[in-house]
Amino acid sequence: MIKSLLFIILAAASAFYPQSAHWLRIAEKAKPDLHHARYTPVRMVEAVPDSSAFQGWRYLEAELTPSQTDTMVLRHGQVLTFDFGRHLVGYLSFSTRTLRRCQDGPLRLRLFMGELPAELNTPLEPWKAWLSRAWMQDEIITVYETDRVVTLPRRLAGRYLKVEVLATSRDFDCALTDLSFDAVSSAGEDTGFRRTASPLLDSIRAVSVTTLSECMQTVYEDGPKRDRRLWAGDLYLQSLANRYSFRNFGLTKRCLFLFAALAADDGTLISNIFESPQPHPQEGSYMLTYSLLWNSTLLEYLLDTGDTLTAQTLWQVAKRQTEDALTYLTPEYIFDIHKRDVWLFFDWREHEGLDVSAPMQAATIFALEQTYELARLLGRTAEVKQYPSVAAKMRRAALRHMYDARRGVMLSGSGKQLSVQSQTWAVKAGILSGAKARKALTTAMTDPKAIQPGTPYATHYLVEAMILAGMPEQARAYLIDYWGGMVRRGADTFWEAYDPNDDYISPYDFFPVNSACHAWSCTPVYFIGKYPDIFR
Amino acid sequence: MIKSLLFIILAAASAFYPQSAHWLRIAEKAKPDLHHARYTPVRMVEAVPDSSAFQGWRYLEAELTPSQTDTMVLRHGQVLTFDFGRHLVGYLSFSTRTLRRCQDGPLRLRLFMGELPAELNTPLEPWKAWLSRAWMQDEIITVYETDRVVTLPRRLAGRYLKVEVLATSRDFDCALTDLSFDAVSSAGEDTGFRRTASPLLDSIRAVSVTTLSECMQTVYEDGPKRDRRLWAGDLYLQSLANRYSFRNFGLTKRCLFLFAALAADDGTLISNIFESPQPHPQEGSYMLTYSLLWNSTLLEYLLDTGDTLTAQTLWQVAKRQTEDALTYLTPEYIFDIHKRDVWLFFDWREHEGLDVSAPMQAATIFALEQTYELARLLGRTAEVKQYPSVAAKMRRAALRHMYDARRGVMLSGSGKQLSVQSQTWAVKAGILSGAKARKALTTAMTDPKAIQPGTPYATHYLVEAMILAGMPEQARAYLIDYWGGMVRRGADTFWEAYDPNDDYISPYDFFPVNSACHAWSCTPVYFIGKYPDIFR
Repeated sequence: MIKSLLFIILAAASAFYPQSAHWLRIAEKAKPDLHHARYTPVRMVEAVPDSSAFQGWRYLEAELTPSQTDTMVLRHGQVLTFDFGRHLVGYLSFSTRTLRRCQDGPLRLRLFMGELPAELNTPLEPWKAWLSRAWMQDEIITVYETDRVVTLPRRLAGRYLKVEVLATSRDFDCALTDLSFDAVSSAGEDTGFRRTASPLLDSIRAVSVTTLSECMQTVYEDGPKRDRRLWAGDLYLQSLANRYSFRNFGLTKRCLFLFAALAADDGTLISNIFESPQPHPQEGSYMLTYSLLWNSTLLEYLLDTGDTLTAQTLWQVAKRQTEDALTYLTPEYIFDIHKRDVWLFFDWREHEGLDVSAPMQAATIFALEQTYELARLLGRTAEVKQYPSVAAKMRRAALRHMYDARRGVMLSGSGKQLSVQSQTWAVKAGILSGAKARKALTTAMTDPKAIQPGTPYATHYLVEAMILAGMPEQARAYLIDYWGGMVRRGADTFWEAYDPNDDYISPYDFFPVNSACHAWSCTPVYFIGKYPDIFR
Repeated sequence: MIKSLLFIILAAASAFYPQSAHWLRIAEKAKPDLHHARYTPVRMVEAVPDSSAFQGWRYLEAELTPSQTDTMVLRHGQVLTFDFGRHLVGYLSFSTRTLRRCQDGPLRLRLFMGELPAELNTPLEPWKAWLSRAWMQDEIITVYETDRVVTLPRRLAGRYLKVEVLATSRDFDCALTDLSFDAVSSAGEDTGFRRTASPLLDSIRAVSVTTLSECMQTVYEDGPKRDRRLWAGDLYLQSLANRYSFRNFGLTKRCLFLFAALAADDGTLISNIFESPQPHPQEGSYMLTYSLLWNSTLLEYLLDTGDTLTAQTLWQVAKRQTEDALTYLTPEYIFDIHKRDVWLFFDWREHEGLDVSAPMQAATIFALEQTYELARLLGRTAEVKQYPSVAAKMRRAALRHMYDARRGVMLSGSGKQLSVQSQTWAVKAGILSGAKARKALTTAMTDPKAIQPGTPYATHYLVEAMILAGMPEQARAYLIDYWGGMVRRGADTFWEAYDPNDDYISPYDFFPVNSACHAWSCTPVYFIGKYPDIFR
């Protein structure tokens, strides 16, 4: 058994790094214990269609209370919705109690856990999303024996539980009882709490922290409902938010090692990792933007912890990612996005034609600088001594080929596309700064033809860019308006996709499958913690 | 734990019989081990609507073979039907195999095990039966992790497995593999095999034996798909069939003790018993017809085994049942079916207004005689010395009040209803014999207005009555026609409800929920074994 497990670990580890099997063991050793907490429903609710409510549905408190269901006969066709009062990740249990005679036939129940009211009340058939229908957390179960506890094997995420009674027998009566939720997280204690002058900002921070803690399991998951896996881009933002909240750097270390151990055979990182049945990457999911952010995560981890041993150990992996990025450069120091088949994710707006030439030029510059900084801290600048000059050349090339001096914005690709994302990353990479940066950001954000951010992920970089560009008040207002908009719409946790002008936005063509607790939206806690003068 | 289990057992045992807790322990000690056998599908089939087929559906062999599914990509919307080639009772396992990339989202499958083609292909919604919808063996499951074996917790019964793919992810491919069925039965070896001159009769015997063995689990179940419990009336017929096949009398002993231990507080038997989580009767299910047949079962058990100890131990229970029956008698020695609220089951035709006055008069006479015979074998006739004279008086009263001498039939109730059931039981009870018996049976069977048997249960008693009445050729022809009709319609096991003129007959208002492997239809093996000259 142990021998075969070892074989699996060795087989899964990267062929490029001789130490990768060892790295996997380090990652497994750093796997955190989960904290458990038990929750019971706080109220019953009834769904009301309401065009003014987010996604068209609102929950109103029902007259029935959760404890009253203990003695209420279940009847075919009944629908009961329980509200646990907060977002939870974990395992649902319930029991049934025989009220009259004895069970003479099985029950059939549909148990549907959801994060948002509309998710639970929008017809799912016909299924319109291009993701699996099975992501919806509705399980149909047969209860063969009443008066015993049933625990659903599936880990669930959500706040509301809708129970539909699909079958009962007329010859006995029973009730649904003992609903209980065993909530799990590895986050620990939020030590970064700070009250601001704005109650809404305080709410935003609280929702951010919940979002992060729900995603902190045995890895930093992107979303505990979906995809339930480790993505390098989400990891970067989570690790930043973690600094100003849970300071659980052991989890960051585990995730850094997992990516390194499970790199592709050419040493490039794979964008996302599954933990079960044994850690493995999503084969072929090469996404250079995320690989480069792994370098930044390692740098930030080193700054947070002083764990030079880890950083030295993983240095070669970081260097491999920037080296890989450099192979895309043209002789003019332009990143050629068409050179190879590669996914360069910046925002889900890619579906709407977001051109990533300019953002990728900037992201590469940023990565070179971050990696050089890492080398400096590790005393290894000799290995990457050309990075500063390459970055400088790339900056000049960007200004020459992508900057429209008349309009004061970066334009991306042969179509000279104007997007907020291009300005954001240009600022982050230092291509634009000061007044130029402010002009570029303001112009793109106000031009009705410009592509705007479509996710909290892209919005994070925009807020950061505003701060870097010297627009602190605008950054504060934008963050409060954007994340506060979710709070006003009833968010218990921040969402994967949010557009203030489109409640039904979905990267998957069907909003109920959106994740409503998504790591990449948790960064207000980072901004509030890092910039107390701005987010006062 | 042991202490609380004991408490439950004591609490469940009858308050009337001081020894009942001990009897429950005897029953538990006699619980048989189950024999296991592994089956895999023999072919794939496709459902074809066909008005000439039983209940409108036929399965044709598909081009695809079961082993080909091992490498076939599962796709949303796909339907695969596997044929195990025979009826099975037990546990279904399968696995999934990743064919491309790795699983990035859950699968959702509907696994529907069924006994008959129409059961699997008739729309179940809206649900029309008055029994629980959850009796249908369709389970919807979410597969979170491919490449591992899933075993459904529900014990299933059937021959066909329909798999519907409700959700997949486009980003990986997987196949359904390793379908396997762990079949269970306590029956053992059929030692009563005898070849007859009729291949159809041989088939009937084989199907009978399968039916019985599928129902022989840790009790004699009425049907392994539904109700999966011990009924005293089914037990009687099963114990008779068992004599000519498995001769597994330990199971009969267990069931006799279970009923006795779990009698009502007044010592009357309860008609049916559940085994789990601990043996318990269906509260309030008092059915005198079945209680009296328990006496006959005990008598037959004694004759089969010579186990006088058991019969002596349980004698008081038998006596209590006949004493109970006698309380219904009027001064004219007529069984008054309206005296108390009691279920007197003879056939599902009760829904169509079957009057049970005449059958119950006869069943009581039969019970008195059987119980007296039991007393005789146990040397206890002094305790029931009045039974022969009461039986004789009841016979005379029946002839006086219920026999229409002109038409030569028994008529039941104030409406003077003519039914086959009234004649059947009159013959079994010796109210009618010889030419009178033949006349009564023949008249009722040929009168278009007479109520005919609606189940194999009632048909058993009719065939028996024909033999008792000296109509061996008619009995043989009837049995071959009736049970052979099921064989010709594709029965692997005999059905709970069968009417040669109505393929859609259902006691529950919806035929798919009918049990297609039902103990009370297994008695051809009894007739063939007991009457080799007739069923030659």
